[in-house]
Amino acid sequence: MRSEVKALYVICDGMADRPVREFGMRTPLQVARTPNMNGLAKEGITGLVDPVAPGIPPGSDTANMALLGYDPYEHYTGRGGLEALGMGLELGPGDVAFRCNFATIDEHGIVLDRRAGRISTENAKVLAEAIRGALEKTSPELGVEVEFVPSIQHRAVLVLRGEGLSRAVSDTDPKEKGRPVKKCEPLNGTLEARRTADIVQRLSELFRTVLTEHPLNKKLVPPANAIILRGAGVVPSLKTLGELYGIRGVCISAVPLIKGVCRAAGMEIADVPGATGSYDTDLRAKFSHALEALRGGADLALVHVKATDLASHDHKADMKINMIERIDEALGEALSELDLSEETYVILTADHTTSLRTGKHEGDPVPVALAGPEVRRDGVETYDELSCAQGGLCRLRGKDLMPVLMNLLGKVERFGF
Amino acid sequence: MRSEVKALYVICDGMADRPVREFGMRTPLQVARTPNMNGLAKEGITGLVDPVAPGIPPGSDTANMALLGYDPYEHYTGRGGLEALGMGLELGPGDVAFRCNFATIDEHGIVLDRRAGRISTENAKVLAEAIRGALEKTSPELGVEVEFVPSIQHRAVLVLRGEGLSRAVSDTDPKEKGRPVKKCEPLNGTLEARRTADIVQRLSELFRTVLTEHPLNKKLVPPANAIILRGAGVVPSLKTLGELYGIRGVCISAVPLIKGVCRAAGMEIADVPGATGSYDTDLRAKFSHALEALRGGADLALVHVKATDLASHDHKADMKINMIERIDEALGEALSELDLSEETYVILTADHTTSLRTGKHEGDPVPVALAGPEVRRDGVETYDELSCAQGGLCRLRGKDLMPVLMNLLGKVERFGF
Repeated sequence: MRSEVKALYVICDGMADRPVREFGMRTPLQVARTPNMNGLAKEGITGLVDPVAPGIPPGSDTANMALLGYDPYEHYTGRGGLEALGMGLELGPGDVAFRCNFATIDEHGIVLDRRAGRISTENAKVLAEAIRGALEKTSPELGVEVEFVPSIQHRAVLVLRGEGLSRAVSDTDPKEKGRPVKKCEPLNGTLEARRTADIVQRLSELFRTVLTEHPLNKKLVPPANAIILRGAGVVPSLKTLGELYGIRGVCISAVPLIKGVCRAAGMEIADVPGATGSYDTDLRAKFSHALEALRGGADLALVHVKATDLASHDHKADMKINMIERIDEALGEALSELDLSEETYVILTADHTTSLRTGKHEGDPVPVALAGPEVRRDGVETYDELSCAQGGLCRLRGKDLMPVLMNLLGKVERFGF
Repeated sequence: MRSEVKALYVICDGMADRPVREFGMRTPLQVARTPNMNGLAKEGITGLVDPVAPGIPPGSDTANMALLGYDPYEHYTGRGGLEALGMGLELGPGDVAFRCNFATIDEHGIVLDRRAGRISTENAKVLAEAIRGALEKTSPELGVEVEFVPSIQHRAVLVLRGEGLSRAVSDTDPKEKGRPVKKCEPLNGTLEARRTADIVQRLSELFRTVLTEHPLNKKLVPPANAIILRGAGVVPSLKTLGELYGIRGVCISAVPLIKGVCRAAGMEIADVPGATGSYDTDLRAKFSHALEALRGGADLALVHVKATDLASHDHKADMKINMIERIDEALGEALSELDLSEETYVILTADHTTSLRTGKHEGDPVPVALAGPEVRRDGVETYDELSCAQGGLCRLRGKDLMPVLMNLLGKVERFGF
């Protein structure tokens, strides 16, 4: 039955890389032992994907939007809204959200630690409680509703709700330590942007006062005495995958930003114990959950693994190889339970290249392998950045991958007669 | 002489396919014996083409518009106008046309046969005459000019001419038997759409009355007692190939919709005896006519063959192989009369993938081979969906193929200085 055909979509964050000198100019994917990824390539069709566009380093948000079929140049409306969505907050159409960090600054406002010594989640909660108390008094004066929600360690989200706000404001986070906290500036001439920037400035000062005076901060070394924020955003108004393709999708990721992108696309967000978004994540639990979701009626299960990206950001070449091999193993176990000749399509890719050398997202394309009942098989036998360049998919844009997959599931309407 | 260089453009409808189980997961193009298609690949450059966009199943109209160089997302204005053009009707800019079927319905309006038992062309003409008689009385009341033109068997076209009409109205054809004839609804809030939907409803009732009372229908089994319609469209306003490239093009196809697309592009429409649009079509006659047109001063002759698509729609794998081999043979004869080293470019492609298994147009790309004097030859030696993925053209959009061909003919103006 065609309507029963399902898809497992595996996105390994920043898994693609550039050639690494100490590996004899091979990439981590070329070095790692990946029999199961190679098996997918062998049984399927391969290619290269430019998540956003050739040479453009994608963010995790824009890349994953694209991989779900949404052109980020058309739909991207900033990180903050997606991050807030991913944390389970409800955002109205005009509400503006920011990604926040608890940070340590000196008396001149110079950032000494952008993560306040990676403050514990518990301590951050205590400080956030004090901030919320102060906001209850201040919000009415500002004429907007303000919500401050801590998540893990130094991470938090700030939401401004109400009329007359804009996401066209600059970050206060200087992005590097040793630099002063920046002033939030309007990025265009609208009244809304000026008002929002002004509110952010007043809130930043309020947060600084509240935090500096908080008794907990007398003990904490370093103290978490400031909130720096970035990525002003609103929730993008996307047609959901349900509306576009009539499918039910489930997202399995530990990363709020990815969850937010998936939620904006109308996917259900799974809560998988052991999924940490770090090196210690329970890959087997994530894939098991995906298979369960597919057995339970979902048409699409997306498994997102963060740690490959972390390894590149941390310049840990061996850790990246190790993570790739662990993903390969967990993928292999999942594949052994799937019937790729009849029922299931599996697509494997990365959301972007993250370079072990630069430690940054780069604009190089990523390899993709797609296997399943009706795929045209090319002769490619290994899954990596170079082999897949020989593949039958040639080179696609990220946003084209979802229609290709959905068409194989029989879910794309004909354009024309 | 450069100005004497010509092109033969061969489009085999729905020839591309997905891997077929009973062929050991090979596609019909991989199975069929095609020495001449392979010869084109060997002597030329190959690639993959997404007629519309990756993963998007194209209609015959949007696909062929694209293959002539027109972006269907920009220019497509519905099937009806193109079909009417293809039947030789003249349409003004605001006139709205519909593709119609003579159908059989029961007393509750349920469609019993969408083709009225494939009524004979002669009988359909008799009934159409009665409809025309009734329209002469009714048209003035409706405030529009109405034309009803039968073509072959159950097929006909309805044209509404005048001011204040819109193509934004829904189909009355339910697309499946056993379902009621649908009400024609406006698809937007404009007065024009509401008025057009209202006119279609009143005409549908008129047709039903006229047909039910017609003496011929007392004898016909099943009776052709209703007209169902679909694909409201206006004629797209395209710059002709003459305006764009200064060329004279000739279309050789048996299918009104394809003729309509070519006519909208300013091509001459050939009438080739023996071109039926079905399995019994006279391929040799079509190619002969194309060569004659090129000898007679045309710059571009387009040969469109429908039957490969029919075979997939009918799930007839062996027939598809057979049609491909017959096309190969006819193509071979034509190639033997052409000088690809000096005078002629030949381009071979399909307008879309039609799956033998699903019987539907699919969004997979199609192979293309292009040979002629100045083509860069790649190493590809066979013409099929997998080999051509290795080709020197890589993967293109359908709309890009025509500029590539026209540039080889020296017909594309430089953009910039």
